[in-house]
Amino acid sequence: MTVFDEATAISRRSEGLYDAKPDARFALVAPGGTAPPAVNGGALMATVLRAVLGESAHPHPVATSAHFLRVPQLAPAEVQVTWLKHGNTASTARATLVQDGKPVLDTTVTTGTVPGGPGAVGTAAEPAADGSGALDWTGPPPAFPDIADCIDLGKWPGTVAADGTAGFAAQVEVLLDPASTGWRNNEPSGLPEMRGYFRLREDRDPDAYVLALAVDALPPVVFGLGATGWAPTVELTWHMRAVPVPGPLQVAARCRHVSGGWFDEEAEVWDAAGRLVAQSRQLARVGRGRLRTMANGSAE
Amino acid sequence: MTVFDEATAISRRSEGLYDAKPDARFALVAPGGTAPPAVNGGALMATVLRAVLGESAHPHPVATSAHFLRVPQLAPAEVQVTWLKHGNTASTARATLVQDGKPVLDTTVTTGTVPGGPGAVGTAAEPAADGSGALDWTGPPPAFPDIADCIDLGKWPGTVAADGTAGFAAQVEVLLDPASTGWRNNEPSGLPEMRGYFRLREDRDPDAYVLALAVDALPPVVFGLGATGWAPTVELTWHMRAVPVPGPLQVAARCRHVSGGWFDEEAEVWDAAGRLVAQSRQLARVGRGRLRTMANGSAE
Repeated sequence: MTVFDEATAISRRSEGLYDAKPDARFALVAPGGTAPPAVNGGALMATVLRAVLGESAHPHPVATSAHFLRVPQLAPAEVQVTWLKHGNTASTARATLVQDGKPVLDTTVTTGTVPGGPGAVGTAAEPAADGSGALDWTGPPPAFPDIADCIDLGKWPGTVAADGTAGFAAQVEVLLDPASTGWRNNEPSGLPEMRGYFRLREDRDPDAYVLALAVDALPPVVFGLGATGWAPTVELTWHMRAVPVPGPLQVAARCRHVSGGWFDEEAEVWDAAGRLVAQSRQLARVGRGRLRTMANGSAE
Repeated sequence: MTVFDEATAISRRSEGLYDAKPDARFALVAPGGTAPPAVNGGALMATVLRAVLGESAHPHPVATSAHFLRVPQLAPAEVQVTWLKHGNTASTARATLVQDGKPVLDTTVTTGTVPGGPGAVGTAAEPAADGSGALDWTGPPPAFPDIADCIDLGKWPGTVAADGTAGFAAQVEVLLDPASTGWRNNEPSGLPEMRGYFRLREDRDPDAYVLALAVDALPPVVFGLGATGWAPTVELTWHMRAVPVPGPLQVAARCRHVSGGWFDEEAEVWDAAGRLVAQSRQLARVGRGRLRTMANGSAE
């Protein structure tokens, strides 16, 4: 079992009730290192989704809305699942990660079936004569440099906690388009955009749980505007659009508006076969502090 | 009081519990007219938001995630509000529209404060020296033709129900960019895009409740691909980004991917002062039937 699967595992206690535990191996140490580490929101979403999909008649989380309420503790937690609707095409559950009786992450998840997967590439149906049903259309993909020309973010400062536990950046590999890395040398591009390849460092094919991680795995887009402080996600909704094939994922994120301390971040995830497999948008807070400059490949 | 304010009104029964009633004046008659009319999802969101904002210490719904579960009946309903977090910057509530003991619309709403409003235009602060805090940035606005060059969708067939009640299209005015209206003459543009001006027909300034309506007020983007059947929204999340000034709203919607019967629709709402005031993304189902061609200005 991979570290990712261990870190997002759940244990069934009864119908709709599961034990879980936010795992230090997916924690991001806050800049400065004085605050307790916060576990990556995508890993928390994956944990909650395991509970939902395990009870769902439909295989895929087509729409996951997540409101991040409190910083999770590295301590036991519960996942509570309540179904709101069981439908033929879609079913919807409310699922909450709870610690000390308080909701940490509140999600609403609609499950259904999306196309794709290893056997499905190139089999997209033509639009039906009446323009409905098998309609298949995709907008132009974002431009990506070759993976060999991208910059490995490495295990940045803060990856290894005081007790020696290696956190988030030790589990995932992010290779950024050089055009979106200027902030690393205090020369931000002036555009709130990030583009990069994403994969787990361990050998594990992407699926719905890895997509939950991928939609919020790049540095915040506002780093491109020089705002390199801690940028907590307030709300994130993502849609799974297809089952990814094995191979690294391409993630392209942009922002449309920053004001009043709020910014949006929209990410698209494309798989190694060039298929749009997930879309997300989040609303987050602009950080007040500055993150120390990340050094390529240097873990503390 | 305007029809919109009447149709989305709530009456407090006790803390966290309100009476409401989906209103035929915001109903869309299904194509063919045999199904009972479905009340516009934006009007339902506005109803639920009234209950949430009435209890909130923060004035604006910065993030509203809505999962549409069942077709509302034109009958009494309840709005149930449960608070998950009260914070200094943001608070989060779960709010559900319930009929016959079943959830019709389930929402999670995070409230906070956004900039803007009539007095705030042109007062955007410069980015702080450290790039955080007062950071203000907006991407390029979508291109809109002059409102005088747009095409009034009018009161399309189905607007007036069998009993004489005038529905959704009698309450709102939608003036579409001619480039996104080809589907009206069975000549779809081939692009899943819609752009239009939106306002209530009655004299009422836009606010959070009108924005909840505006984010899903244009015809579905897949009409541009010829798929003009009923396209039910499964999930819609929208972010309020600024308080709109009086005047018509500009709404630009696009799609990135259609497959397996699912499509996404992303809308931006800009106010009359040229400010981005709301963003939404929804996941919806491609309709199977065909909508009768809409005739400009002709009500049944």
